[in-house]
Parts: sequence; structure tokens; C-alpha cells
Amino acid sequence: MAEKDLKALFLHTLKDVYFAENAISRALPKMAESADSPDLEDAFTTHLEQTREQIKRLEQIFELMGEKAESVPCEAIQGIIKEGNEVAQTFEGGPALDAGLIAAAQAVEHYEIARYGALVSWAERLGLDEVAGLLDETLDEEKETDNLLTELAESEANEEADT
Amino acid sequence: MAEKDLKALFLHTLKDVYFAENAISRALPKMAESADSPDLEDAFTTHLEQTREQIKRLEQIFELMGEKAESVPCEAIQGIIKEGNEVAQTFEGGPALDAGLIAAAQAVEHYEIARYGALVSWAERLGLDEVAGLLDETLDEEKETDNLLTELAESEANEEADT
Repeated sequence: MAEKDLKALFLHTLKDVYFAENAISRALPKMAESADSPDLEDAFTTHLEQTREQIKRLEQIFELMGEKAESVPCEAIQGIIKEGNEVAQTFEGGPALDAGLIAAAQAVEHYEIARYGALVSWAERLGLDEVAGLLDETLDEEKETDNLLTELAESEANEEADT
Repeated sequence: MAEKDLKALFLHTLKDVYFAENAISRALPKMAESADSPDLEDAFTTHLEQTREQIKRLEQIFELMGEKAESVPCEAIQGIIKEGNEVAQTFEGGPALDAGLIAAAQAVEHYEIARYGALVSWAERLGLDEVAGLLDETLDEEKETDNLLTELAESEANEEADT
């Protein structure tokens, strides 16, 4: 039963988000480049730096657990990123591009919020306090990024209303 | 430019969630059947009924907008559901199955929260007040379901700690 317990589920999910964060770090430069608004471009660039730190944090967690940092393919994030790219292509050159990019990025953030939320709770159940603390830092950052994206969407809507 | 404006983005995303809700309604019976805990099975069954109402609500929105209710393939939800099925298979028969199922369902809920959040804000920008109200009802239900799943995860952890 050892391979089916909560620690195994935790490690599996850790490898899933390790894959996801790496995929996101490859997707963000393109999203930044696509954005019309300089504020949105900045937000994506800042989140890229944050994502690189989050990847290092995951590697630290693997090390704390005496495990090799490795990925399992995460089809969820692949689908989310692919949809985002399609929206960027479809709405390129039009007035709704940034709204589409923000929504795509918020789908990414919510995936991460769901995953890190589960990981924090499982780490606590497993008594991995230091690991839970590190994961909670990332969870807070993802929630902050989601809030920042909501603010950008609102300010974009207000600017549009003013013109 | 008409095909690239906010209304086009709104309609595209509406078709995306219409696909997603239908895919979720097909996935939930299997998740309910897989669950170990009767409370979790009940939660999935209740959410299936809710999902069917949410599908009808989307059809009502298409009608209000004078559009045909149709789907565009949503690779994000396909990836999220596929990952959930893999976790269910991998952890079947083990003590972490329900934790894995809850986490998979929360990934689904967060995808929907992101999508409905964007749709509500775009409907408001487009002056589609009745549509925004209907979408907001669903958004609230998805958030409630996510909270319920968190409570189930906590009560499961507490029961485990008591044994």
C-alpha cells in the first residue's frame, strides 16, 4: 500500500506542479511579448521572475524530502497554456487581446492555487512543517498575482470606458 | 475588427465553458462511484445536479444573446479531467484516494471560477446585466463547491487523525 499513500500523492502532485511551473516559465515571455498594455507586459515579466523563484523553492522541497527533483507531465497546464496561445492568436491585433491574455493567465493562476492549496494541506497532515511553509509562500504569491490580474482587467475596462 | 472584439471573446469563452460543463457532467458520475467516503460521493452527486442546472443556465444565456448554444473544444478541462482520472486509477484501493479525488475536483472548480469570473466582468462591460447576473449565480455555486470540498478534505484529515 506504500505507493498509494498520502506521501505518494503529495510527491506525485509536487512533480506535477514542478512540470507546470517550468511550462509556465516557458510560456510567460511570449505572453509578455503579446500584451498590448505596458502594465500587463510588466506584470507578466515580474511573474516570470517570481515563477523562477517558485521553481527553486520546489527544488528545495525535493531536497528537504531527500527526493530527486523531477517532473510528471501535467496535461492540465498543457491544455490551459494551449488555450491561452489560441486566444492570443485569435484576438491578436484586436481590442480584446489583453482581456483574453489576462483571462488566460488567471486560468493558470487558479490551477496553481488549487494545486498548492492541496499540497499545503497535505504537507501539514504529513507533519512536513518546513515544506508546508515554503508551499504556503508560493500559494500566497499565486493569489496575489491573481488579484493583480483582476485589478489590471478593471483598470483596462475603466480606461476603455473613458475613451 | 468585429470578430476580435470583447463580445467575440465573451462568446468564445461562453462556448468554452459550455464544452467544459458538459465534460464535467460526464466525468462526475465516475468520480462519485470512485469515492470511498459516502459524504464525498454525495458531494459529487449533488454537484452533478448543479452542473446540469448550470448547463441550462448557459443555454438560457445563448438564447438571451440570440446565439445558438454550441461548444468549442476546451483542452484545459480535458487535461484537468484526464489528470483526475489518472490519479483516481493510480490511488484506487489506497488511503489517499479521496484526497486525490477532492484535489482533482478542486482543480476543476478553480478552472470554472477563473472562467466565470472573466465572463461576469466582461458581461458587465458589455452592458449585458441579465447575463452577468446568471453567470454570477454559477460563479457563487462554484465557489461554494470549492469551499465544501475544502471542508470535506479537512474532516477526512481529522477522521484519519482520530483513528
